[in-house]
Amino acid sequence: MKIDLSHATVPARHIEEKRELAEKALDRLWSGEEPFTGWVRLPFHDTDDMVEELLNTAAEIWTKCDLFVVVGVGGSFMGANAVLKALGPEIPGFPKVIFAGYNLDPEMLLDISRQVQKNETCLCVISKSGTTLETLVAFSALKEIMVQKYGKAANGRIYAVTDENHGLLREESMASGYTTFPIPQDIGGRFSVLTPVGLFPLAAAGVDIKALMKGAKDMAEDPKWDVDAADYAIARVCLGESGKYIEAHESFDPSMEQFGQWLKQLFGESEGKEGKGIYPTVLSFTRDLHSVGQYLQEGTPVFFETMVLFESTREDLTIPDSAGPQLSGLTISQINGCIQKGVLAAHTKAQIPVITVTMPQKDAYNLGRLIYFFELSCGISALMIGVDPFNQPGVERYKQESNEEIRKLRPEK
Amino acid sequence: MKIDLSHATVPARHIEEKRELAEKALDRLWSGEEPFTGWVRLPFHDTDDMVEELLNTAAEIWTKCDLFVVVGVGGSFMGANAVLKALGPEIPGFPKVIFAGYNLDPEMLLDISRQVQKNETCLCVISKSGTTLETLVAFSALKEIMVQKYGKAANGRIYAVTDENHGLLREESMASGYTTFPIPQDIGGRFSVLTPVGLFPLAAAGVDIKALMKGAKDMAEDPKWDVDAADYAIARVCLGESGKYIEAHESFDPSMEQFGQWLKQLFGESEGKEGKGIYPTVLSFTRDLHSVGQYLQEGTPVFFETMVLFESTREDLTIPDSAGPQLSGLTISQINGCIQKGVLAAHTKAQIPVITVTMPQKDAYNLGRLIYFFELSCGISALMIGVDPFNQPGVERYKQESNEEIRKLRPEK
Repeated sequence: MKIDLSHATVPARHIEEKRELAEKALDRLWSGEEPFTGWVRLPFHDTDDMVEELLNTAAEIWTKCDLFVVVGVGGSFMGANAVLKALGPEIPGFPKVIFAGYNLDPEMLLDISRQVQKNETCLCVISKSGTTLETLVAFSALKEIMVQKYGKAANGRIYAVTDENHGLLREESMASGYTTFPIPQDIGGRFSVLTPVGLFPLAAAGVDIKALMKGAKDMAEDPKWDVDAADYAIARVCLGESGKYIEAHESFDPSMEQFGQWLKQLFGESEGKEGKGIYPTVLSFTRDLHSVGQYLQEGTPVFFETMVLFESTREDLTIPDSAGPQLSGLTISQINGCIQKGVLAAHTKAQIPVITVTMPQKDAYNLGRLIYFFELSCGISALMIGVDPFNQPGVERYKQESNEEIRKLRPEK
Repeated sequence: MKIDLSHATVPARHIEEKRELAEKALDRLWSGEEPFTGWVRLPFHDTDDMVEELLNTAAEIWTKCDLFVVVGVGGSFMGANAVLKALGPEIPGFPKVIFAGYNLDPEMLLDISRQVQKNETCLCVISKSGTTLETLVAFSALKEIMVQKYGKAANGRIYAVTDENHGLLREESMASGYTTFPIPQDIGGRFSVLTPVGLFPLAAAGVDIKALMKGAKDMAEDPKWDVDAADYAIARVCLGESGKYIEAHESFDPSMEQFGQWLKQLFGESEGKEGKGIYPTVLSFTRDLHSVGQYLQEGTPVFFETMVLFESTREDLTIPDSAGPQLSGLTISQINGCIQKGVLAAHTKAQIPVITVTMPQKDAYNLGRLIYFFELSCGISALMIGVDPFNQPGVERYKQESNEEIRKLRPEK
């Protein structure tokens, strides 16, 4: 894994000027004294028991069902979805894992309901409190179908990842006898993919969660990555200060688009407060070179690019003769690699800042490394710009207004 | 259909100050003298014959195959994909339509190859020249499988939408006897969804393309919409001038996410040149309220929002009792509607500009109206900021650099 800031257009002395600030931020994250920083030391804790317990339950699930429906939204959805889409979306020999309750779309929920009726299904609900609106709506609808289908045995097919002690979902789980896994108290939603929140759905899907955790641990143990995570954070802060308001999270592998959505939440929700923060957006190449390639090359220069690249692909395909002499005999990955280099060259010549993060390959181990790297760097950059990375006070505003609207629909209550 | 600029935070006098400029732009588009403005008058032309011919060929396809694979990228992909995902993604009783060749992903192409082997398939390639790299790669690979599977009869299952007279694909189509449809000379890729480029795949998928065209025609014929398209363009230009660098294209219906991708290309490629243009990005609610809701409410205020809303949904679902007294008995669409209102109220109170485009329902007719409205408005705004909406000189840069890299792989040539 390699972070390349040489095309970031940030002078080395600007990086050095901010190093002390970044190191202070890093110390605060590592100190263990800040609230909601449990994720920083998580890979050092003895997570082996937790992982074994998740895998034992996953093994039960593999024998019980073909379809595993995970109900969750935001941090209870995006991490597992990112890893699964990158490595799956289905892994042969394991249940199909699909996500529900991450929006309020009746068509999608009805479609999932039909799938539950047709397949041997287990249901998993992920919510700290159990009161998140989207989760509550989808879980109540799907639970009803599970009970219709399996009667009392439904409860043996329902799993909950929730607060260890409190909340509506904890109470229901106790009363109904659902198998549960705890959400650690000191880890917020968008930093929770390496807890049961992300690990349990991934284990059910057949993802190698031991390798995922090993990747995160290797990253956390090696002090070199503290420096690189700090450098990436500093570069982002410098770019933001110089009028680069947008970060485009880019990949040349379309199965990484949902990983971009996870990054969008991680950075957007951690930094976007007090009128600050870089606007996160996701681009999937080469598709989006044909939509915003023109803009990136010649549009308003208010953005920078962060590319996650892989040196090899899991599968490849040789281009047949009918594609003509320029292309035939080469592989699709070779051509994709040429376009990566071409985009980097063209954008660099146009003075567009590009940061690259290059991984040897796309697998659970390397995704674990990437996840920890971006989490750490995000914590640093948010502290550097002077905001609390771990709260999200602004989302209460629309929720309050929405609840007011819901109350208007029920004037009698 | 209703455009509401009352929350756009643009003073009425600013709109009026720019009206003359907008009207001049509109005149240039309507004049028919500008190159590549064929799409403006397209709905007035007698398109009935074209539509009939497309439907006749589609009827053949419906009897011949279960799977219709469309190879295209950029403007030869995003329009049809947007409409199909909004109305499908599959329409019962019609072939499954999937898209290929819009990226360089060997895994995706191998997966599609396996589907071609398993299903009765027809193949459609869409490219003006036939030399676009992604298209050429995917078409050559899939054609090979078609020939392996169907022998000489493969050519009777291959369709091409291409230049009427010239180019590699035109020549191959003549030589091999593919059924073809023309891409009009005076319409560029991102404005081509209402030509055979978009209509043919949609007809094959069972979308009511007559209703789609009727929607566009009704929009083009009613001068009220010229004013509204101009007003939306003016508001965008004013917002851009006041430091709103980003437009978030938002929907509360997740099946509209690909429509957002189409808007991203339309606006990004038309405006993003000469250091100008608004950066287009796509948000799918409520999912993304849980990722960037915090940022939208309290982050750096350099963006505005454009929401496409529908007054009704095709399906709905009543929330069961177990969701609790606040929600039970209401429908998911009602709750989604409350969140729409809540977000609008919360963002308006925070002085965030929000523009809403409200449609009675999501169907082919109303999507036709939306498409024409956004195309017209995009043409106006690009001319207003002084750029040519119909070229994309910047994309040649990365293509040249990429071709250079490809040549390096073949030093002997």
